[in-house]
Amino acid sequence: MATPVPLLEPSLARVRVVLTRTSHPGNIGAAARALKTMGFSRLLLVAPKILPDEQSLAMASGADDVLAAAQVVDSLAEALTGTVMSLALTARQRGLATAPLWAREAAVELAGAATRHEVALVFGNETSGLSNDELSLCSHWALIPANPAYSSLNLAAAVQILCYELRLAMLVAEPPPSVTDAGLPATREQIEALVGHLEHMALDSGFLDPAAPKRLMPRLRRLFNRSRLEVEEVNILRGLLASFQQPTGSKHRGSSKN
Amino acid sequence: MATPVPLLEPSLARVRVVLTRTSHPGNIGAAARALKTMGFSRLLLVAPKILPDEQSLAMASGADDVLAAAQVVDSLAEALTGTVMSLALTARQRGLATAPLWAREAAVELAGAATRHEVALVFGNETSGLSNDELSLCSHWALIPANPAYSSLNLAAAVQILCYELRLAMLVAEPPPSVTDAGLPATREQIEALVGHLEHMALDSGFLDPAAPKRLMPRLRRLFNRSRLEVEEVNILRGLLASFQQPTGSKHRGSSKN
Repeated sequence: MATPVPLLEPSLARVRVVLTRTSHPGNIGAAARALKTMGFSRLLLVAPKILPDEQSLAMASGADDVLAAAQVVDSLAEALTGTVMSLALTARQRGLATAPLWAREAAVELAGAATRHEVALVFGNETSGLSNDELSLCSHWALIPANPAYSSLNLAAAVQILCYELRLAMLVAEPPPSVTDAGLPATREQIEALVGHLEHMALDSGFLDPAAPKRLMPRLRRLFNRSRLEVEEVNILRGLLASFQQPTGSKHRGSSKN
Repeated sequence: MATPVPLLEPSLARVRVVLTRTSHPGNIGAAARALKTMGFSRLLLVAPKILPDEQSLAMASGADDVLAAAQVVDSLAEALTGTVMSLALTARQRGLATAPLWAREAAVELAGAATRHEVALVFGNETSGLSNDELSLCSHWALIPANPAYSSLNLAAAVQILCYELRLAMLVAEPPPSVTDAGLPATREQIEALVGHLEHMALDSGFLDPAAPKRLMPRLRRLFNRSRLEVEEVNILRGLLASFQQPTGSKHRGSSKN
């Protein structure tokens, strides 16, 4: 079956740009302008230190509509609800990790996903960037190949580059090659429910000590975010976990399902 | 002969970023930051409406060294002295023209030229952009493929994208293929001297009416800027023109030279 060429507009509309814990309201406005120049329209603000104000409006210039429609939410998890791919911009390599992608290749992947699914671009605080916990909620990480001696891009400038790369990638994007019987990709909250299920069981079993949790949960979260789990696979894994929770005598009931 | 892979640092150092008639000093600082994040260091300001000030410094962040070293000049021609390729960002198609290039392909050409020669990125005023006369001084024009419904990038955001594209192109740039006996490319002022020579003669001959010059000179300028003239070719053309200016009886002396 020939792959239809995706339309640009629906792909653009599937992208949310998420700013996390911004310090300066001017940057929110400048970011709104940046994303609108590249054809995007959805801005989500996670716990901004100062809500959009006059300065945001001045910096938004003709993108005041994007600013007015911006959604303010309490957590990054909430901002990512329903996405199947989320690309976090990071300024540096982190310890615990899959390798980040360069912005250009990351944009190509995101454009492919956006031909069918909700996706997000995620940016951290102006000074501190994204925390490790925030990074672990995102499925992919991107780096901008900046000057190693001075890589400090302004927030709106970083939004401009990622949105520019994504727009260009979308102009030539094709849906990712589909395996004949590939299933629907799991959303972030389905994956989070699986992780929560594991966490609950790990606490129950004593493997996870809440007083000294170390990096167990972030590690699991990264693993599953990275694995491109399908809905059916999440269901299977959770069914399996549920079967482990049943009293010994009833185990055959769970295992017969798969 | 194998083409040596060019080094990044010397190429970066051959690039000047030229801002023309900026209105807002904050944008000068933000542009300084943008170019430094991509490894560039040379900023030229053509007749800024307000000279760099406190606000520029605040927006420059860690690029205060670039700002402090910025050169202020009176005219775009002065800013382009010694360049063999100058890429002007333009927001729209213009009447009189070669077609502009997309930013990405333009950056590849500029990166190739910068492996051996001085080059410039040229940006216009925040509101009005570059005038037709300013555009006609530049050898190439670039477009950013923005949202047709809202293409108004902030000046520093435009600088960020062009510098980003140029840095990426430089990371893989090769010197342009050289014809065995290709000569040294003419600089902008050598080309300008040729145009001036023609203008002088056109005024003398009455072909150019200074009271109604129409678009003759901009047209000639564009033609020669576009033609990638070599130094030797400029010399030949100017010798030829000089020969036309000699009294009839002495013409054989000029023509024997070439």
